This record gives sequence, structure tokens and C-alpha cells, in this order.
Amino acid sequence: MAKQDRRTLSPFQQRWHNIIFEADTPAGRAFDVALLAMILLSVAVVMLESVVSVQQRFERLFTVLEWVFTILFTLEYLFRIWCSYRPKAYITSFYGLIDLLCILPTYVEFLFGGAHFLLTIRILRLMRIFRIFKLVPFLNESRQLALALEHSRRKIAVFLFFILLLTVVLGSLMYVIESGHNSGFTSIPVSVYWAVVTLTTVGYGDIAPITPMGQAFSALIMIMGYAIIAVPTGIVTVEMSRLRDKNEVDQRICPHCMREGHDANADYCKFCGTKL
Amino acid sequence: MAKQDRRTLSPFQQRWHNIIFEADTPAGRAFDVALLAMILLSVAVVMLESVVSVQQRFERLFTVLEWVFTILFTLEYLFRIWCSYRPKAYITSFYGLIDLLCILPTYVEFLFGGAHFLLTIRILRLMRIFRIFKLVPFLNESRQLALALEHSRRKIAVFLFFILLLTVVLGSLMYVIESGHNSGFTSIPVSVYWAVVTLTTVGYGDIAPITPMGQAFSALIMIMGYAIIAVPTGIVTVEMSRLRDKNEVDQRICPHCMREGHDANADYCKFCGTKL
Amino acid sequence: MAKQDRRTLSPFQQRWHNIIFEADTPAGRAFDVALLAMILLSVAVVMLESVVSVQQRFERLFTVLEWVFTILFTLEYLFRIWCSYRPKAYITSFYGLIDLLCILPTYVEFLFGGAHFLLTIRILRLMRIFRIFKLVPFLNESRQLALALEHSRRKIAVFLFFILLLTVVLGSLMYVIESGHNSGFTSIPVSVYWAVVTLTTVGYGDIAPITPMGQAFSALIMIMGYAIIAVPTGIVTVEMSRLRDKNEVDQRICPHCMREGHDANADYCKFCGTKL
Amino acid sequence: MAKQDRRTLSPFQQRWHNIIFEADTPAGRAFDVALLAMILLSVAVVMLESVVSVQQRFERLFTVLEWVFTILFTLEYLFRIWCSYRPKAYITSFYGLIDLLCILPTYVEFLFGGAHFLLTIRILRLMRIFRIFKLVPFLNESRQLALALEHSRRKIAVFLFFILLLTVVLGSLMYVIESGHNSGFTSIPVSVYWAVVTLTTVGYGDIAPITPMGQAFSALIMIMGYAIIAVPTGIVTVEMSRLRDKNEVDQRICPHCMREGHDANADYCKFCGTKL
Repeated sequence: MAKQDRRTLSPFQQRWHNIIFEADTPAGRAFDVALLAMILLSVAVVMLESVVSVQQRFERLFTVLEWVFTILFTLEYLFRIWCSYRPKAYITSFYGLIDLLCILPTYVEFLFGGAHFLLTIRILRLMRIFRIFKLVPFLNESRQLALALEHSRRKIAVFLFFILLLTVVLGSLMYVIESGHNSGFTSIPVSVYWAVVTLTTVGYGDIAPITPMGQAFSALIMIMGYAIIAVPTGIVTVEMSRLRDKNEVDQRICPHCMREGHDANADYCKFCGTKL
Repeated sequence: MAKQDRRTLSPFQQRWHNIIFEADTPAGRAFDVALLAMILLSVAVVMLESVVSVQQRFERLFTVLEWVFTILFTLEYLFRIWCSYRPKAYITSFYGLIDLLCILPTYVEFLFGGAHFLLTIRILRLMRIFRIFKLVPFLNESRQLALALEHSRRKIAVFLFFILLLTVVLGSLMYVIESGHNSGFTSIPVSVYWAVVTLTTVGYGDIAPITPMGQAFSALIMIMGYAIIAVPTGIVTVEMSRLRDKNEVDQRICPHCMREGHDANADYCKFCGTKL
Repeated sequence: MAKQDRRTLSPFQQRWHNIIFEADTPAGRAFDVALLAMILLSVAVVMLESVVSVQQRFERLFTVLEWVFTILFTLEYLFRIWCSYRPKAYITSFYGLIDLLCILPTYVEFLFGGAHFLLTIRILRLMRIFRIFKLVPFLNESRQLALALEHSRRKIAVFLFFILLLTVVLGSLMYVIESGHNSGFTSIPVSVYWAVVTLTTVGYGDIAPITPMGQAFSALIMIMGYAIIAVPTGIVTVEMSRLRDKNEVDQRICPHCMREGHDANADYCKFCGTKL
Repeated sequence: MAKQDRRTLSPFQQRWHNIIFEADTPAGRAFDVALLAMILLSVAVVMLESVVSVQQRFERLFTVLEWVFTILFTLEYLFRIWCSYRPKAYITSFYGLIDLLCILPTYVEFLFGGAHFLLTIRILRLMRIFRIFKLVPFLNESRQLALALEHSRRKIAVFLFFILLLTVVLGSLMYVIESGHNSGFTSIPVSVYWAVVTLTTVGYGDIAPITPMGQAFSALIMIMGYAIIAVPTGIVTVEMSRLRDKNEVDQRICPHCMREGHDANADYCKFCGTKL
């Protein structure tokens, strides 16, 4: 993102930009803290609304609060666009999309109904918390975690693809074995659901094998799942250790013996004693 | 597989070979995409057939569709043999066997009954997806995963063997403790099934201990299972990191003895002493 | 903790200090073993008190025993303060706080009620066991484990934060899908509880999806949880292997700058260039 | 075990020694295979005996078979002592103890009753399978696995000790929260059992929290368990990778440049090209 692409803001816009997008000034920090509080409060309201006994007592208050929060978040969203250096970049950024998604459900609910409880998606806005409180080490850690997952995403995709094929085949076999004897295995899709529940070692028990052959076959699936769980763990562990190794290896070369592999805290070449 | 073993195809056969076995030409690609769509559709039909309410409404359609798919897949199978350079190699290959397995159930069902729902095995044909869409990186990843599992197969076999012995002994002990007090532990085979459910941390809860001693013993088994899960994970992780290390190994070939596998920091060939 | 900060103890106090805080003398060892026995006995009494059938038979005995234990532990606590070189340091230390926490519930119960069964917290005093029996290797191992967890605490905090956001969003989505069809998903907080139960692969089955869409969505969550469990495992494994590598590092100290931490293959000090 | 300690066997004893203890001669191999078959058969009989419907039909046959097997195994045990070079060493060895344990239950059952189903412990004799079939690579793998577990046994003991303390404290807290509202949490020992079921992610669901506070607290425990499972995994993985590293590093030093770190398959020093 080259700096020259950004539009010119008026001093008034600039001041608001600093308050809304940055957290360096007291005003900016106060704005961010108030925002976090409002996000938490608004999620709590949506959650409480779903509890029937609470909802009946505070119905009116909840409706008012929800509209207040939605209007405030909408104003904030428009304001962010207005005082952004590159409005388009903000709108299409990860945080911009989340910000939009967090106000839409109320309007969708108003127009069509049914989207109300999706407002809890607002909790995703809390991800700003690390930036707001300058939790730099935490930011670094989450970047490293994201990087490790990013690097292993292909291996994990292949893994999940095979899990999918496996559960379809195992579920169908189990349907052939159990259906007719067991009221739980009503169809192949339900049996596939059961195979996922079993292979991942979740094991609700809402559907469980009852025929001896079904139980023997299930035991096989469980032991398979027990061994298969090693695969994603291995993938992510190897990726993380690789990332760490890269972080720790210094790129410097000794000017005298030209050898590499020095530690980050080394001042002298460990092979010939020359100053690095 | 030496190239000279392959038979000579007529130009007509050759053209079809390219369409069916390769995905480089527009026609070949169109064929593969149509095949994938048909596989998905045919699996969906079998799955829907198992849902009673849907089956009752579309019974006739489903029967027709199933025969259409089976006949098409059969023709495709024969065609593949006909235009293959080495028909025997195709028939005995992994994909060839899967292709055959995917058409058999309909005929078995027609002759003897009972094999119908095994048609979902067709989903395994989706494994071709990586090759068809030229998803080379994914192909590499899955080869690496397969290699890691291949290398750790002995350790995992030993591990599963001990899990088997362990669950038989634990299940019998639990049968002695619980049977008579608990209607769930009806026999030793069922108790062994319970031991597998518990040790793998699946925990359906269809059978659960109720005596104090049984609960204490179960708690021990669970904690054991919690620690044991570390074993396959350790095996696979170590194998994966070993593979990765090998991958990162130097690509240099000795100019004298032509052997590979040198360390990155090697100056001389470790097999014949020639300078690299 | 500089030694000069500590107050002077009378010879009488000093003798008791050795008995209570050290385990080198026969008397000190006897004291510690008696203490461990009392801790175990007192926890057993509290546990048995909660079993109705046992409680009804031994009510009086239990009440007496509990007061005896509490008074003895209180005296021990005061004694520890009295004969400690640095009473404040003891009171605010980890073990000091545990010791206090282990006598409070009886008094809170006496004054306000309701805290009685928290007495099982006394079991935490067993952590002294490694020190008492001079299980030095075990002490080292637990220090290493604690260190590995300490080093990975930030990554794990970030991980748990994202798990929290994830379960709130997944729970709400599931509430929208299942509520109305399923008597289990009564509110969003309950659905979030269900999401945690599912994502962690615990899977009680007290709440389970019943709509086809709910089951499909749950299957996705489970597979996600199956892959996500790789993250904390990767974090801790990498941290442990890093710690071990450091442990195996060279023990040489530079004769010139007296610094440690050289690699095993280093010939010169990497800080000052002196030959090692 | 020095060879000179062993007693002198008569040629007759020696021949039997080779048959029973070794598997190199055709007779020895035949003996071992027959033994494995008998072990499997005898375990199958005990398992089937526990299935009521089968037991009622074959009661007499089962009783006869069990005595036949027990007498044969007893004779084999005495024979092994008789033709062993060092009878005491055999009796106190791991396999010797297993062999004894595998015949005792029938006699205990005969004299006191109740030990009958423990006969399934005979399945542990199958561990001989690797040796009998000369599955050397599998033997090596299992030795490596055992070694890795052996090396991490202290860390795992410390880990399990803390899990024990943790579950007692968590179970008691949960008892205070749920008892009175929930018929499942009847006493602290039962709550501790529940805490183990939850922390290990087994999750039977026979006991599940129903109060909002109990569910929130359980969710915390589950997430804790989800992170804690990383600890044993990390321990074992690090230990396994350490063992592998040791196995793969060569101890040779270059006679010319005196440097170490050569691969096991190296013939020449990789730093100076001298023959190793």
C-alpha cells in the first residue's frame, strides 16, 4: 500500500482519523476503550435476549438498547469511511468487513426477520483488543500462530479432504451394519454425522452402535481416529518449529572466514574470532 | 514401469487415451470435470435414497438414476481398459481397483441384494481431484503426508497392537468390577468395546460405570488414555520433521560418484572424498 | 532474596525452623511425613463427608476431626510465621498463601456457612511432597514443565482468546439453526456451552443437534476442533524442545568475559572473540 | 546376566530348551505357533463364556476347555522352569510372571471363586508374537517406543500428579456449585470422577452440569483440558526426537581435522575430505 495513493484529509478529518484509527493520543485511547465496552455490552444484550425468562422482563429495554448500539456502530462505520485516508482499502479490509457485518443483522431483521441473534458476531470486533492496548508481544505471537497455520493450510486441507472421504465411506458401511437393528442410524447422512462424531473422538452418544458387529467396527473407527489425530498435530508442530528456527538464525556472514550460522546475540565469529 | 512394456495403441485409441487419462487438452479436462460431477451426483443419490421420506417420493427416479450411473461408470471402466497402454497395470492399480469397486455394488444388489448402499464408496474416486485440477502443491503435500505415515507404519502397528492387548485386559477387569451392578456391562466383548470408547476419549456414555470402584478404575483408564494419545502424535511428528529435514538437505550431486544427500555444510563428498 | 534481609532467630526458633522448613534432620523429616499424612487424612474426611450414607453414620466424628485438623493446621501456620527468617516473604509466597487458604474454609463455614467442601483445597499442600522426599529429579522435571508452560503462556493466551470468540460465534449460529426444533438449545449462553463441549471434543451429549442442517454444521465444528487441538500441542512441543536444546548447550565459560551460552561447535567466544 | 551363572542342562533338557525358548528350529517354531493359537483360543473361550446366550448353550464344553487350557499352560510353565538355564531368572522375569499370572485365575476360581474372567490376561502372552515371527524391525520399534516412554516417565509422573490434584480441587468446586440442583453430583468423589471425565475430554454425559454457573465453569475446565493435553504430547514428542537424533548421529571423529558430526553413512570427512 503505497502512501501516495492516499487522499488528502482536511485537518478536521485528520484529527478524527487519529482518534478513531490510532490509539496513541488520550482521546484515541478513550475512544477505543469506550468502543470495546460498547461491543461487550451489545453482545451481552443479544445473549441475554435469547434467555426467555430475562427477555420477558426486559423486552422493551433490550429493543431500545439494540437500536441504540446499531445506530452508534453505523455512525462509527460511516465516520471511519469519512476520515480514512483510503476509504476503499478500509471497506474491503478484514476489519472493515467485520465492522459492516456487525451492523447488518439489525437491518436485515427489521426488513426480513430472522437475523437477530447473528448480532453476536460483534464479538469478533474484540480482535482489535491487542492493537488498542499495545499488547505488542501478543500481536507478535498471534502473527506467528497465524503464519504457522497459513504455512500448513495446504497439508491441513488435504487432511480434511481425506477425513471427508473417510467419514462418508465409514458412515455408509455402518449404516449397512446397524440400520434395521438400531433406531439411531436412520439414513446415510445421519450415519456420516455419527462417523464424524466418532472419528473426532467427540462421542455425544446420541447415536451409538448396538449390534456386536457395529460395536466392533466402531471400536476400529475410534482407534483409527485416535491415531489420525496425530496428523494435524504433526503438521502444525513441524511448521511451528520451522518458523522458530528461522526466527532464531542470524543471516550474518563472517567477513574473514565467510561462514554463517551465528547466533543473533553473537558479536564475534565463533569459528575464527573475527568481529562480525 | 518401463515404457517398452506398453502395447501400441491405434490413433483412435490414443486420442481417447488422452481424453480419459490426461487432463491437458480441453476435451480431457471437460471429460474429467463431467466425471467428477457425475461421481458427486451419484453419491448424493445413494445418500438421499437412504432417507425414508425422500426415498418414498422419488423411488422410481432414484432407481433409474442409479442404473444410468452404473452403466455409464461401467462403460467408462471398459473404455479405460480398452485405451490404456498397459491394461493389466491399470486394472491392478489403486485407482483401477477403486473404479471396479464403484460399479460392483449395483450388480451384486441386483443378483443377491444387500450391497446397495455401499455405492457411496464411489466418493473415493474424488481422490482424482488433485490430479485433474493440476493441484500440484496439494499432490506434493499429500505425498509427503502419505510418506510420513508410511515411515511410521511399523511404530503405529506396534502401538495399536498394545492398545488391543490393553483394552482386552482393561475391559475384562471392568467386567469383573461392574457386571452384576450395571446393566451396561453385559459381557466381556461389550466391556472391551467400552474400554476402547473410554481409552480413545470418545466417551459415548451408552455404557458408563456406576459402582464407586468402577468409576475410580475408569478415571485411571481415562488418564492413561490422555497420556497414551501422546504416543502416535509423537511418532508422526518426529517422522514429519525428519522428512522435512531431508527435504531441506542440499541438492548437490558429487561430480565424481554422482551420489546425493550431502549436508548443507559439507565441502567434500562424504562417500568418495571429492570436493563438491 | 538477599540473605542480609532476614531477621535473626533465637536458637529455639532456629531449631523449629529446621524442623518445619527443612527436611534434612530426622525430626524435620518426621514432621513433614506426619504433615503429609494429616493432609491426606483431612482431605479424605472432607470427601467422605459429602457421601450421604457415610455422613449420616459418622457425622459427629467428622465434625470433631475437621476441627482438630483445622486447629492443628492453624497452629502450624502461625508457627511457620513465628520461626521464619522472613515472615512476610513466607506469607506472600505461593506455599504461604496455599497454607492460609487451607484453613480459612472451616472458619468461613463457621461464620457464614457454605464454604465447607472447599477444604479439599488442602490437597494442594501435597505439592510439597517432592521437596520433602528429596525427589530432586522430579523437582527438576516439574520446573522444566513449568518453564515450558511459562514460555508458551502468551501464545496459549492468544489461542484461548480466539477459542472464546469462536465459540461465541459458533454457538450463536447453532442457536439460530437449532432453537425451535431442539429443546436443548434454550439460549445463546447454553449454545456457547454446547460449542465448547463440541469444539474441545468432550461431547457429553446432554445437548446434541437434531436438525439435518444442525448436524452438518456440528460435523464441521468437530472437524475444526480436531484440527485446532494441534495448535496448543504444537506450541508446547516447540517450547519444550527449545528448552531441551538450551539444556544441552555447551557448559563452557569464556575465560575472558566469563559469559556462557556458547554453541557446542564454537572455537571462540562469540561475545569477546577470545579463544575458548 | 553373566553366562557363567547358568546351570548345566542335560542334552534332553537342552533339546527342549531350544524348542520352548527359541524359535530357530522347525520344532521350536511349531511349538510357538501352536502356543499362540492356544492363547488366542483360550482368550476367545473366556470372552464367549461371559456372553449369557452362548454360555447357556456350551456351558459344559467351556468348563472342559478351560481346564484343558489351564492344565496345558501349567505343564508348559513347569516345563519352562525345568529346561531353563537359569530357572530363577525366568520365574522373576517379565514374561515368567505373565506366564504364572495366566494360569492362576482358574485355581483361584476353583478354591475361592470370582477370579474366572481374569483369565483374559492370557492375551498378554501374545506379546511374544514379535519374537516368535522374527519381526525384528517391530521389536526395534517397540523397544524405541518403550525407551521414549521410559525416559519421559518422570515428567509424565509429575504431570499425572498435578492432574490428580487439579481434578480433586475442580471436582470439589463443581460439587459446591451443582449439588442441590443436579442429581448427578451426589458426592465429592463422584464429582472428582466427573472432573476426570471432563478434563480428559472423554465426556460420557452420564453426569453433566445443568446450572448456568456450573456450565460456565465446566466450559473453563474443558478448555483447560484441551490445552493441558498438549503437555504429555510435548513430553513424548521431544523424547522421541531426542532418541532419534542420538540414533542417527555418528560418533566418529575425522583423523585429520578432528571434527565430529558425520552422518552414519559417510565414508569421508565432509569438512576436509580425509577417509574416516
